[in-house]
Amino acid sequence: MLGWTEILGLVAGIFTTAAVTPQIWKAWKTKEVEDVSIGMYLVLITGLALWLVYGIITSDIPIIATNGTAFALNTFMLYLIFRYQEKD
Amino acid sequence: MLGWTEILGLVAGIFTTAAVTPQIWKAWKTKEVEDVSIGMYLVLITGLALWLVYGIITSDIPIIATNGTAFALNTFMLYLIFRYQEKD
Repeated sequence: MLGWTEILGLVAGIFTTAAVTPQIWKAWKTKEVEDVSIGMYLVLITGLALWLVYGIITSDIPIIATNGTAFALNTFMLYLIFRYQEKD
Repeated sequence: MLGWTEILGLVAGIFTTAAVTPQIWKAWKTKEVEDVSIGMYLVLITGLALWLVYGIITSDIPIIATNGTAFALNTFMLYLIFRYQEKD
């Protein structure tokens, strides 16, 4: 059974992992990404990849699961930035 | 002394914590935030606040330090979104 502390950590992880989905949805709908920082996603994806390696080295399943999911979601957002950015 | 694994975790934490700073810089410079999702920052800040509570309950200093810093930075970004969003 999970205690309240573990449940709190899980809920926190779900929130921080899923946070980028409203941004993906907005970019997908409006096809506008001009004000979104590419640098932010490059730094974030690098950090998430490092967390993923850290989780694999330390065999930490929650770190692998949350950072792996966040890595995939944020890489998709980076793809949308490149896809929709103005070519001018 | 820190081992390679601890250093990897620290570097990963610095990257994911600092990731929002290029976005803050861009919003500050351009005063344009139309394409940035408010929902993303609301979900993210909620998650970071929950991580902070989790860190305090479990007395985990790295979790408190990284999520506390990220909470402050992302709250400032949310403030910039409200400050610069178009009133139309």
